[in-house]
Amino acid sequence: MAPKTVLIVYAHQSARSFNSAAKDVAVEAFTQQGYKVIVSDLYAMNFKATATTEDITGGVKNPEEFKYGEETMQAWMEGRLSDDIIAEHRKLEEAELVIFQFPMYWFGVPAILKGWIDRVLTQGFAFTLQTVYDNGKFKDKKAMLSFSTGAMESMFLPDGLNGDLNVTLWPLQNGVLRFCGFQVLAPQVFWCPANSPPEVRTTRLESWRARLETLLDEQPLTFASSGMFDLSFSGGFKLRPEIWEEQSTCPHGISTGHHLGKPLPPNNQLKAGDKRGDAV
Amino acid sequence: MAPKTVLIVYAHQSARSFNSAAKDVAVEAFTQQGYKVIVSDLYAMNFKATATTEDITGGVKNPEEFKYGEETMQAWMEGRLSDDIIAEHRKLEEAELVIFQFPMYWFGVPAILKGWIDRVLTQGFAFTLQTVYDNGKFKDKKAMLSFSTGAMESMFLPDGLNGDLNVTLWPLQNGVLRFCGFQVLAPQVFWCPANSPPEVRTTRLESWRARLETLLDEQPLTFASSGMFDLSFSGGFKLRPEIWEEQSTCPHGISTGHHLGKPLPPNNQLKAGDKRGDAV
Repeated sequence: MAPKTVLIVYAHQSARSFNSAAKDVAVEAFTQQGYKVIVSDLYAMNFKATATTEDITGGVKNPEEFKYGEETMQAWMEGRLSDDIIAEHRKLEEAELVIFQFPMYWFGVPAILKGWIDRVLTQGFAFTLQTVYDNGKFKDKKAMLSFSTGAMESMFLPDGLNGDLNVTLWPLQNGVLRFCGFQVLAPQVFWCPANSPPEVRTTRLESWRARLETLLDEQPLTFASSGMFDLSFSGGFKLRPEIWEEQSTCPHGISTGHHLGKPLPPNNQLKAGDKRGDAV
Repeated sequence: MAPKTVLIVYAHQSARSFNSAAKDVAVEAFTQQGYKVIVSDLYAMNFKATATTEDITGGVKNPEEFKYGEETMQAWMEGRLSDDIIAEHRKLEEAELVIFQFPMYWFGVPAILKGWIDRVLTQGFAFTLQTVYDNGKFKDKKAMLSFSTGAMESMFLPDGLNGDLNVTLWPLQNGVLRFCGFQVLAPQVFWCPANSPPEVRTTRLESWRARLETLLDEQPLTFASSGMFDLSFSGGFKLRPEIWEEQSTCPHGISTGHHLGKPLPPNNQLKAGDKRGDAV
């Protein structure tokens, strides 16, 4: 039997960075567990970030009024996407777990990694209008964010200056990963390693290594189930009235907007199995 | 007196797109009002999206362990940033209003626009650790998002399949714009223009043109004031206890995490002056 595969999509410029070390720890840990590990080292690959007509070989259908999403969906069906996108599709198909390893830039992923998301998660390949969230194409795969910050942890608590980290991560964890069906594992957050002494950095990496031992046994984060929604154009893809009713007595949670739940307890970092989606 | 300046940071590949038309309407409207309008047409400029050592001229300080944020801050102080970044700095300095015009890609901005954010909002130039949010460098400027979606409006209501649009926009509106001090104007959302007949597109553009007549008179969105937080390392940049106390009886709002407020009424699009930050 072929070994199972982990894909690490890695975005840091320097091989001596903390992010590189975190990536290396994951490569080692999964290799030791008998996995095949593939790394997409985006800066080293000089990965193209921008979504352009060059992503389609043999000419676009409508050069006058180019629509990236439509044209790339068509190109995917006809096998005419550029080689670099096809290569990432192959890796994704093979992977049962995808780890995104990056330094947080401006409350999100660096542009080169956003480019990977924009270009590789092609409509048709990564989702269709009929297959999103619970029914997503990648529902048998797991994915997670692993990142460093410039901010202290307390700044991203619900009562911190930057607001709840869950809110900041929502577009990525729900809008990208869960949208494609991935089972989303709790994020691995490395708080401000730049200001940490070497021994603290080492301790954090060892803690990451320890988590990786059982990562694939973790319960994924919980998101509102697609079944709670009326998935029709006439229903507007909105929460079913009876679900609204059921949940209306909850002090926090679905009644204040289905993704807005009770905040995490102060000073309590997310743990595997926490109801992360509900908590947003 | 020199005319006042509007900067439009525009990210669409096609000059015949709806986003291009929306950009053109803004150029016309502000020109008629006597403003100087500058457009950064990112795809046409072949704007570099990725944050690399090439953004610094004359060599980086620590090539072995390259840290983008530190190195570009240093280069900014020494006047050694690349010409394309300096050109955008000049535009930003001159502008009293910045409009970001783009199609939403994956619950956020296209990678080329994220690249503009990552590369142009250099530490030192756009913020320092002492000058963020209320005290931000750009506190005398206004900024707003203007974007098209692939989703219907109902999908982004608090009870919609994708969750509240406010949450999705939070990293951009608070994490990028408000962080730099901008007064953030309510977003202009063009819901799914691709599926709209030409007359609907025309009506939407006229509505945008009408809004632009008085855009600069609009009240900006409300965000939690920096003064509510203990802005010290020992205080962890967390909400002051007395503020927590004051707000604890609000049924929704600051007691559930200071950025998590009451949801917008169903089917009610954001209007100028809505307490958008509080609603997130």
